[in-house]
Amino acid sequence: MSEVVAKIGEVDSEEAEQLRQLYVDFEKHNLMPLWTQTGDLMPMTPKPKAVPFVWKWSDLYPLAKQSGNLVRVGRGGERRAIGLANPGLGGRPYISPTLWAAIQYLGPRETAPEHRHSQNAFRFVVEGEGVWTVVNGDPVRMSRGDFLLTPGWHFHGHHNASDHPMAWIDGLDIPFSQQNDVGFFEFGSERVTDYATPQFSRAERLWCHPGLRPLSGLESTVASPISAYRWEFTDRALTEQLLLEEEGQPATIGQGHAAVRYVNPTTGGDVMPTIRAEFHRLREGATTPGRREVGSSVFQVFEGRGLVSLEGVETRLDKGDLFVIPSWVHWSLSAETSFDLFRFSDAPIMERLHFARVHVDRSDR
Amino acid sequence: MSEVVAKIGEVDSEEAEQLRQLYVDFEKHNLMPLWTQTGDLMPMTPKPKAVPFVWKWSDLYPLAKQSGNLVRVGRGGERRAIGLANPGLGGRPYISPTLWAAIQYLGPRETAPEHRHSQNAFRFVVEGEGVWTVVNGDPVRMSRGDFLLTPGWHFHGHHNASDHPMAWIDGLDIPFSQQNDVGFFEFGSERVTDYATPQFSRAERLWCHPGLRPLSGLESTVASPISAYRWEFTDRALTEQLLLEEEGQPATIGQGHAAVRYVNPTTGGDVMPTIRAEFHRLREGATTPGRREVGSSVFQVFEGRGLVSLEGVETRLDKGDLFVIPSWVHWSLSAETSFDLFRFSDAPIMERLHFARVHVDRSDR
Amino acid sequence: MSEVVAKIGEVDSEEAEQLRQLYVDFEKHNLMPLWTQTGDLMPMTPKPKAVPFVWKWSDLYPLAKQSGNLVRVGRGGERRAIGLANPGLGGRPYISPTLWAAIQYLGPRETAPEHRHSQNAFRFVVEGEGVWTVVNGDPVRMSRGDFLLTPGWHFHGHHNASDHPMAWIDGLDIPFSQQNDVGFFEFGSERVTDYATPQFSRAERLWCHPGLRPLSGLESTVASPISAYRWEFTDRALTEQLLLEEEGQPATIGQGHAAVRYVNPTTGGDVMPTIRAEFHRLREGATTPGRREVGSSVFQVFEGRGLVSLEGVETRLDKGDLFVIPSWVHWSLSAETSFDLFRFSDAPIMERLHFARVHVDRSDR
Amino acid sequence: MSEVVAKIGEVDSEEAEQLRQLYVDFEKHNLMPLWTQTGDLMPMTPKPKAVPFVWKWSDLYPLAKQSGNLVRVGRGGERRAIGLANPGLGGRPYISPTLWAAIQYLGPRETAPEHRHSQNAFRFVVEGEGVWTVVNGDPVRMSRGDFLLTPGWHFHGHHNASDHPMAWIDGLDIPFSQQNDVGFFEFGSERVTDYATPQFSRAERLWCHPGLRPLSGLESTVASPISAYRWEFTDRALTEQLLLEEEGQPATIGQGHAAVRYVNPTTGGDVMPTIRAEFHRLREGATTPGRREVGSSVFQVFEGRGLVSLEGVETRLDKGDLFVIPSWVHWSLSAETSFDLFRFSDAPIMERLHFARVHVDRSDR
Repeated sequence: MSEVVAKIGEVDSEEAEQLRQLYVDFEKHNLMPLWTQTGDLMPMTPKPKAVPFVWKWSDLYPLAKQSGNLVRVGRGGERRAIGLANPGLGGRPYISPTLWAAIQYLGPRETAPEHRHSQNAFRFVVEGEGVWTVVNGDPVRMSRGDFLLTPGWHFHGHHNASDHPMAWIDGLDIPFSQQNDVGFFEFGSERVTDYATPQFSRAERLWCHPGLRPLSGLESTVASPISAYRWEFTDRALTEQLLLEEEGQPATIGQGHAAVRYVNPTTGGDVMPTIRAEFHRLREGATTPGRREVGSSVFQVFEGRGLVSLEGVETRLDKGDLFVIPSWVHWSLSAETSFDLFRFSDAPIMERLHFARVHVDRSDR
Repeated sequence: MSEVVAKIGEVDSEEAEQLRQLYVDFEKHNLMPLWTQTGDLMPMTPKPKAVPFVWKWSDLYPLAKQSGNLVRVGRGGERRAIGLANPGLGGRPYISPTLWAAIQYLGPRETAPEHRHSQNAFRFVVEGEGVWTVVNGDPVRMSRGDFLLTPGWHFHGHHNASDHPMAWIDGLDIPFSQQNDVGFFEFGSERVTDYATPQFSRAERLWCHPGLRPLSGLESTVASPISAYRWEFTDRALTEQLLLEEEGQPATIGQGHAAVRYVNPTTGGDVMPTIRAEFHRLREGATTPGRREVGSSVFQVFEGRGLVSLEGVETRLDKGDLFVIPSWVHWSLSAETSFDLFRFSDAPIMERLHFARVHVDRSDR
Repeated sequence: MSEVVAKIGEVDSEEAEQLRQLYVDFEKHNLMPLWTQTGDLMPMTPKPKAVPFVWKWSDLYPLAKQSGNLVRVGRGGERRAIGLANPGLGGRPYISPTLWAAIQYLGPRETAPEHRHSQNAFRFVVEGEGVWTVVNGDPVRMSRGDFLLTPGWHFHGHHNASDHPMAWIDGLDIPFSQQNDVGFFEFGSERVTDYATPQFSRAERLWCHPGLRPLSGLESTVASPISAYRWEFTDRALTEQLLLEEEGQPATIGQGHAAVRYVNPTTGGDVMPTIRAEFHRLREGATTPGRREVGSSVFQVFEGRGLVSLEGVETRLDKGDLFVIPSWVHWSLSAETSFDLFRFSDAPIMERLHFARVHVDRSDR
Repeated sequence: MSEVVAKIGEVDSEEAEQLRQLYVDFEKHNLMPLWTQTGDLMPMTPKPKAVPFVWKWSDLYPLAKQSGNLVRVGRGGERRAIGLANPGLGGRPYISPTLWAAIQYLGPRETAPEHRHSQNAFRFVVEGEGVWTVVNGDPVRMSRGDFLLTPGWHFHGHHNASDHPMAWIDGLDIPFSQQNDVGFFEFGSERVTDYATPQFSRAERLWCHPGLRPLSGLESTVASPISAYRWEFTDRALTEQLLLEEEGQPATIGQGHAAVRYVNPTTGGDVMPTIRAEFHRLREGATTPGRREVGSSVFQVFEGRGLVSLEGVETRLDKGDLFVIPSWVHWSLSAETSFDLFRFSDAPIMERLHFARVHVDRSDR
């Protein structure tokens, strides 16, 4: 840029006038020169506008509850969901350039009507029970610790079959879809199509048997056919990893750090084309090496206490707290107690388009 | 061929002599004409030398037991395994051109020494318990209904930790490997490397959580990392399919016919590159439509009674009975009671090399 | 939304005050409700801010030339490239939400210094010759009709070896990279590393033999190893398709419509992970059926005259003219003469993330 | 095995009698013990029955010619093809356990009738011209140096449009298909369906443009859609590799060793699911490091002179000579002149089923 500026500095008045005219002509013809903006357009490393940020559950939950008192859920607004708006993203309800995260709240006996959209969605339940989400007609129980899918273009509605309210976290690729103009939307039934409240959905009964694939389901699917990843299984998987580590066997991804990825059993890959979801458990006292990754991630504390360091700034985390790590932001976690965290990210986008990069700090381990 | 013969018929004696000389010269130079053997080399449909055949468990098991009395297991012979020799395959211990099936028998407190080979292997347990197979150092319990893997080039040995003998079925791709000269073999420890008798192997503890993949295992593997597919899961999966069918939901592959495929959780595909394994359950009275498939299959009855029709010949089947279906042989099953069958085949070979074809009889269903 | 509004309308003054307070609290805690913005966030069909737009070469080229007179090329500004700024995108130099398109101009004997970046780039030459682009040290001639690649993280610089200026079109995924914070950038040599001017690059000599793959290049690559897709081959491929059509053979994708996709010979897929490139030739008088597609496309007229219809508005096109088709915009082409067009798009993003959809108008053909 | 024998040695006469009875019972019930044959069934390294062998063109061609005089070609015998029978394979016309190689001879104005089969086939032309092979109705010229495909289940026939005879090499997967019972066969027209003699087939006109894929051909195909890989392209690719090597650039796979693989442009992979084909050129004086590979290969000398070493035995090779390298046989080549060789193998089978292994001798290069 300096050379260009220098040249402008040197030019005589006739050239300066011509240059001014050139820029006027650019604007008139909907043109913009690269040379005045290379650094902004193509930074040396990612320079996200999104900032690392922590939302406290102790702030979120009361506001969700108050929404339950004041705002009806129904056709049009569709959901009583409150989006976490990254302070760096200028007043858009986006937690990152690609991801939407919200707390959704459903009062006793309420129904959120059915619809479907191109956007991929999931729910994660940090506490409570009593709601069933009905996905393509299949009622799916929602309980603490469960991770539930409503992949793109699946009809879904929710209803609360209990006498107490329930809140959970929604994750979607709304910002990505919005930015890239890929979204379609369709209204469905104003009531959910099936008010049954089975313990297990049909999808689970067909698909949740480890290493077994129904012969009626041999076609690989774009998104996982598993409607609900139950806490019981997640907890057991993490427990076993830490036990194996104690026995001196390879199982964890770092000392005291157990982790699983939720996957599509038809491929072994991510649950949906744009969203990765994982669950991490740190032993008391464990820390993770500092990392930077291309793409953005959101964590929610499920249980326990610890600290997150985001570009060197430490924040205390308690149950339910959420935080976002924008692209290439340096982060690490440390556990004050046994520390359980749910994570989701846009990593499948980065990997499928070959933009993924990771930097891990050298450690002494 | 007729034209060639005709020509020979017409030829004068000089030409006949030249033709005789030509055939002599062919032989001398290790040459063979196509025109005398097209029909045999390239039949209109597969014409397997292997024949459909049924082995009765009531014959097999006593002979295995008698082997236990008379033949020691150890280095050199390696395994007390008795191969099922297809009567059409001229005295080779091959159940089909690609597959080996054997009954293996291990006496109380015996050990089968460790080795490894390129050939892919599995075990299926039709009855009994008490043996652990040690796969790459990981002891894996063997119990009724379990399907256990020892993929190519994994060290494995077995030991019987109980005071009673145990028998099971081995399946391998020995004939394919032998025919195509792909096999390597290496001796390992003369004793198994770990005599522990855990309820669950380390591989199961890491991998048998539905839809969950350890972050320490993100590389896809050629063969499934699951060491044992437990009967408990298989039974539940089949039970759920039939219950879903009763509820009017899609789940089975035919009326009254539940079935699962054992898969590699890192890919959703077959457990090993050359061998497919499935478990089928027919309701009492159910029948399967007649089929022909390229490639060969072996079934073993796990529970119940029924009939198999092989090229129109029906045979009564009881628990433990094994039968082979060579390529393109017409077959169907019918169930006299609830009828459980384990199946393995060379279908991955056929599919990966694009030779797979299936013909299903038109049915009124 | 109507129901929410209705409720607000009904509320008594105490509830109204509480609701006001709720919205204040949302803002304070960086939260935004979904129910006030569903329609905008999740439209029924894509509602791009980008608009369909046509840039005339007769406007672009003179301005590029004038830039050549007035603006120096060199380190910092890096390139004398003038971006086409979609009027709907609020003053950002983006032709669509994902794509950058620019005219680049290099004066006689000038050099554009070497650098590399995560962003994928290509050049397409609508007229002229004399410049070599040096990609990872390999000098690549640029001539009329050639399509040239500089995939992500390949060093590249350009130099004009002639005494006349040259202009061409650059295409990149800058907006996508910028929006999703994936970009890295590194400066290279201030001069190009090799000023040789060979007729064919080393990459072409190794890779441009139809159906032949060097044994030294058996690893598949993320981007095509072909540095230059020469006009001679493109022209011949299109000519043959139309001749085959005349002979009554299947070859074209529509009556009078020949088309090729530039592909990565190691995979048969798109040349780069985010950008698809194609060349289309319409016979005089041919038209294409109206279409809508998810994702955005840019065309440049290479030769001939015709019309583009964009949401029903027809524009006359001449050589060099460029136009953009945002997501789900209705478009069709018709040819007044034999009509050649280069096309690039973000289709690989849409396909890899499973957002691709196409609507084609019913036609009588 | 020794332990088993030992035990038999020790046994008292009663046990010996029981053991004899056991083996009788095994035979009666179509059973065979593993312990008497482990070494043969599962050797330490591949022990092919096929032997390395060289056929001299100076023997083959005169016999083919004499067949032309004495044997008519037509329906039934189908082809005047003379198979190379590996001396180790017991009188079957198989050059290896997986591959068929034959010399085919067509007299002036003769037609070989159309048929199709599951078996994948190719032709390679070491000398001559004048024949067209008609593949799914598309006439394909056959000329010296060309490699031509007739993938599985494509109809094909040949006709000689000239007044001189022509011979070429056929390669197929007949032994593999025969062994594994995968083959189907269907007769087609007794005459070829199109007697046109175009310079280039329609398939070539559509597909032989480097890096360009017709939009009418976006579905990937099991076998390459390229009907003929012309010598002109192969020769140029090899020439360029050696020139690049002289310029100090990476291009060859070993010093003085240029090589290309014929590939399917829709995938970048092998031309057919079971057969790999390559062309190798050694500079005068070049040698290749000794290798062993799982799977079998056949070479034909196309031009020049050299030596092949097969398990340490050297044989002089001249134009047209063919040799087979069975699995895990040690081999190397050395060139007395510039030395061109065509190669085909069953490597896709080995790779797709994960049996591939390669050993390369350490070299000083």
